[in-house]
Amino acid sequence: MSSQVVVLSGGIGGAKLALGLSRVLEPDQLTVIVNTGDDFTHLGLRICPDIDTTLYTLAGISNTELGWGRANESWNCLNAVEALGGENWFQLGDKDIALHLLRTQALANGTSLAEITDTLRQRLGIKAKILPMSDQFVATEVETDEGLLAFQHYFVKRRCEPKVSAIRYNGACGAYPLLEIQDLLSAQDLRAIIIAPSNPYLSIDPILSVRGMKDLLRNANAPVVAVSPIIGGDAVKGPTAKIMGEMGIESSAHSVQVHYQSLIDGYVFDKKDANIQSKILGPSLCTNTLMKTLQDRDQLAREVLEFADTLAPTG
Amino acid sequence: MSSQVVVLSGGIGGAKLALGLSRVLEPDQLTVIVNTGDDFTHLGLRICPDIDTTLYTLAGISNTELGWGRANESWNCLNAVEALGGENWFQLGDKDIALHLLRTQALANGTSLAEITDTLRQRLGIKAKILPMSDQFVATEVETDEGLLAFQHYFVKRRCEPKVSAIRYNGACGAYPLLEIQDLLSAQDLRAIIIAPSNPYLSIDPILSVRGMKDLLRNANAPVVAVSPIIGGDAVKGPTAKIMGEMGIESSAHSVQVHYQSLIDGYVFDKKDANIQSKILGPSLCTNTLMKTLQDRDQLAREVLEFADTLAPTG
Repeated sequence: MSSQVVVLSGGIGGAKLALGLSRVLEPDQLTVIVNTGDDFTHLGLRICPDIDTTLYTLAGISNTELGWGRANESWNCLNAVEALGGENWFQLGDKDIALHLLRTQALANGTSLAEITDTLRQRLGIKAKILPMSDQFVATEVETDEGLLAFQHYFVKRRCEPKVSAIRYNGACGAYPLLEIQDLLSAQDLRAIIIAPSNPYLSIDPILSVRGMKDLLRNANAPVVAVSPIIGGDAVKGPTAKIMGEMGIESSAHSVQVHYQSLIDGYVFDKKDANIQSKILGPSLCTNTLMKTLQDRDQLAREVLEFADTLAPTG
Repeated sequence: MSSQVVVLSGGIGGAKLALGLSRVLEPDQLTVIVNTGDDFTHLGLRICPDIDTTLYTLAGISNTELGWGRANESWNCLNAVEALGGENWFQLGDKDIALHLLRTQALANGTSLAEITDTLRQRLGIKAKILPMSDQFVATEVETDEGLLAFQHYFVKRRCEPKVSAIRYNGACGAYPLLEIQDLLSAQDLRAIIIAPSNPYLSIDPILSVRGMKDLLRNANAPVVAVSPIIGGDAVKGPTAKIMGEMGIESSAHSVQVHYQSLIDGYVFDKKDANIQSKILGPSLCTNTLMKTLQDRDQLAREVLEFADTLAPTG
């Protein structure tokens, strides 16, 4: 059995599965390819929400109550920013700002996003590799009934309230997968590629939109398995179901499978959606996919890996 | 009687007198011209220690225990920076970082240092004007027995321990006083120009080194009065006396008067140094200059102003 497992992930949902995978695999067997389409510059700081959530989650220091940021966080800096008339719509904790400062400084000094992400990963004691999808900047933009909105403007400032008609990945056509990603996905000893239960449109599609990424998945010597973020017709967290409805797509685990169909060799969905079983084309696994506890994460990670191992690689 | 009073100031000692002046004058009568030779970029943040001390002191939120930074400060960000392997030799509190973030962002967006300083001043509810000596970057550098050191490297990282042989104001020959400073010092309704009891070499000379600043003082239609930072042969705080000794200058209030002699019309020094009275050329005021309490600041401010009013302007 080959050993490398790659997971494509956004923020919270994906990071949960990545944590499970990091626990059931050997330390050097997991690589997380993270969406950077949400990245933006705020208060002069380069913020990479999905990389940060992945780092904090895998380091065991994530804020599980909030679902983002660090545990035991304080807000003294942001409160002072507000008192000085600065923008406060994007919440940044004092400890969280430390990471943003170091990253912003590194990028300004010519360090690549991949390099500083790797440095931070090591400093946080994380064994799994964490790779931004690209070193080039890709900006997810949302076409809405309030006009074209930058992602964080839509997601945080406007709380996903505007009605979405389309989503763009600005810069994706000029962005390339990291060389490390190209090597990894072309390797012979690849065990599985897992598309995490993240928002397909806001978290996974930005990764897939990077030039050549889809071909790397299609040509990989390993099965590609997607895990549905839709459970019982709704998203566990976030606007996935709302966006699907607004874009005229039925909010169902089946729709997600159709969305990924040309890329995947197997599909994992929740028992609450067992009724869609007959519609699913190709191999599938119907199991508990809701990850409330650490045991849930481990269990789902194990089942997804075992399922992937039953699938022949597509070449 | 003309109404505008200008004070040239560094950090803590100068800010104390500026606070006294701001309390005994009408709100629109005081302008503080602040040294920016200590400014540097740290963790990607543009830090202006003397401007910050002036802002915090005049806003009544300075940390009087530490002598720098803000009161009721927390250090969660810096501790996290340290844990992530970042530099921690320069102490930055969480609230303090808020100001640096806003300034750094403003400068990156093309706002001038004078503009963002004025914005911060207004947001902090300060009535007195606070002007950086120049919008151009001047970097104080210290020649020492450990080589040429950037100011903060010498001052904070090496705690003023290296032996100083000379001090340079890098960029000063290409830096111009703010237009506002030029207008202010050329105005007819100028009441007094006060050189605060700051370090003459590290805080006042950088201001005086800005192209044309000395001529503006010499040609001003108001008396120039310097207040000695040396009391009883020693500095109240900081390395003034140590540096004077290292540069072969007697550490005395008299030496400071000689240093400023070509610029000033009057000199204020402490009663502890009454023995130098006979050496002082020109008008002088021997009084209590140690500012421990708020009353001390007010009292010294009043006496310096009254003393200045007795001096004829030099044209």
